[in-house]
Amino acid sequence: MIVRGAGAIGATAAYGLAQGARAFRERDRAKFLRHLEAVGATLKAARPTAVDPLNAIDRVRQAMRAGQTIDEQQALALAAAEEFADEDVRHCEDIGRHGAKLIRNGMNILTHCNAGWLAFVDVGSATAPLYAAQAQGRKFHVYCDETRPRCQGATLTAWELAEQRVSHQVIADSAAGHLMQRGKIDLVIVGSDRTLGRTGEVANKIGTYSKAVLARRHRIPFYVAIPLSTIDWNLKSGFDIPIEERHESEVLGAWGITANPQSGTRNPKSAKRAYVRVANPTSGASNPGFDVTPAELITGIITPVGILKPHELWAERKELGCSS
Amino acid sequence: MIVRGAGAIGATAAYGLAQGARAFRERDRAKFLRHLEAVGATLKAARPTAVDPLNAIDRVRQAMRAGQTIDEQQALALAAAEEFADEDVRHCEDIGRHGAKLIRNGMNILTHCNAGWLAFVDVGSATAPLYAAQAQGRKFHVYCDETRPRCQGATLTAWELAEQRVSHQVIADSAAGHLMQRGKIDLVIVGSDRTLGRTGEVANKIGTYSKAVLARRHRIPFYVAIPLSTIDWNLKSGFDIPIEERHESEVLGAWGITANPQSGTRNPKSAKRAYVRVANPTSGASNPGFDVTPAELITGIITPVGILKPHELWAERKELGCSS
Repeated sequence: MIVRGAGAIGATAAYGLAQGARAFRERDRAKFLRHLEAVGATLKAARPTAVDPLNAIDRVRQAMRAGQTIDEQQALALAAAEEFADEDVRHCEDIGRHGAKLIRNGMNILTHCNAGWLAFVDVGSATAPLYAAQAQGRKFHVYCDETRPRCQGATLTAWELAEQRVSHQVIADSAAGHLMQRGKIDLVIVGSDRTLGRTGEVANKIGTYSKAVLARRHRIPFYVAIPLSTIDWNLKSGFDIPIEERHESEVLGAWGITANPQSGTRNPKSAKRAYVRVANPTSGASNPGFDVTPAELITGIITPVGILKPHELWAERKELGCSS
Repeated sequence: MIVRGAGAIGATAAYGLAQGARAFRERDRAKFLRHLEAVGATLKAARPTAVDPLNAIDRVRQAMRAGQTIDEQQALALAAAEEFADEDVRHCEDIGRHGAKLIRNGMNILTHCNAGWLAFVDVGSATAPLYAAQAQGRKFHVYCDETRPRCQGATLTAWELAEQRVSHQVIADSAAGHLMQRGKIDLVIVGSDRTLGRTGEVANKIGTYSKAVLARRHRIPFYVAIPLSTIDWNLKSGFDIPIEERHESEVLGAWGITANPQSGTRNPKSAKRAYVRVANPTSGASNPGFDVTPAELITGIITPVGILKPHELWAERKELGCSS
């Protein structure tokens, strides 16, 4: 979690493998391959639910095949990593261009977790349509789910939106259903850590599935924005996606900056970063980090090549970069 | 929020009015009535969503009518408050007796917020069936929604269950949908701050509605446990229930005890209670405290007189203590 966000961990894995390749200083090709396997395995194990790192590593390994010598392969690995990172930016810009069409003036938009420029190399996936619509002069309001337990919505998305001067409010994750019931949400856009190309199922931060169920009940459009590196063309079922179980301390407490409880504001002189234990000290927690939303609850998937229905991913797989 | 929980604030309002009546030291009856009105208005305004305080105040005022003198009325007020508090305990025990029948060995049960003995005079509403089933020797596991923003689930319910030695884990509010999807929740029991006798709609802590929607999707029984003082026989629609909008600092941060972030455990020497600002410092929040669950999503309402379908409340209103 030093790096987080689907696009960012993908690019980090690509550069990580390139850097791992360059760190190899011997001449033994068989040993080089074993070294690459070990580096790749370490990078893949870091975040099991996300597919971007796997795709990034596959891409770099693929590119390296064109090299004859270890030197050549090391250079190709770095070039492939750079290409992967640049492509992430282009993909996010394309997502913004397509997704902006969904946003009308005066809309209230819900997002969950952080799929913004802090999660990608730039622009972001779920936030890209917001920024593109804003650039086109449209006004709207964003509700950021705080996204317990790590609160990426309250911290990262809220900060991004403040920096971008987008009207927004943080809400408890539990509040979205009430807001939908009262007609205060017109559109939901989220990101994804792994989207299955065969089924259109979407793994994303825990709580995404609940929002999709609520959106369906209230007939609110529910969109998922993804670059191509988030698509998994292999898995046949969402139940096969490994769900990262994270440490219970995340649920049992919260990270923040010491502040005035009445106003919620920090005293610049005494403020410091701190972890507080919120839960009863003798209780434990269950902390699944992600969940899987079935295709039937998803109105559309905003990809760099356009907005598709979940079941259209497979039909359009060539255009979406599926090599198989 | 010095006192919280439907039953506890009801009893507190009853005793508050009795105490307010006793504080009146003059002999002017008209002035006494104005004084009672003012005390009642203050008590009613403290927590607008809950109906228990309104019912408690009505009950005490009703009982006082039998007195001729101010002295007599003051004594009757105290007696009525004591009867109200005693009745709360009996009601919760009766809820336990009826609700325990829903709980089978090995079940996984979800609850939201705290409707336990900490929220009532004793026993609690949503927890009463758990404690009764446990007393009958049944084993089960409880998932406590942490219940952001004030985390009554992580703090109060988890502590109660630990004290009662009931197997339990705290979860992020967002995790329940995933657990339901994976077949890990068999039953949901929650409390209520106001249940409409005419429609069966249930106001309860923010997030209850979302859990009801998810439970319906997964065909998981969803029960609401209430003493009779939680029933509002007047309102005709859940949209007429005032939803308390609480201070944004609750959503923007969290209260806890300073602790070790790796383990989540407190250092007894340096631990102190602290509020930390979690959210981006330049962002605001929306903080509705309650939501309304429609009758169609509720499998049954566990009352002191038995388990009823929501629409049966009105038909059974005489037995449920409706005076109109």
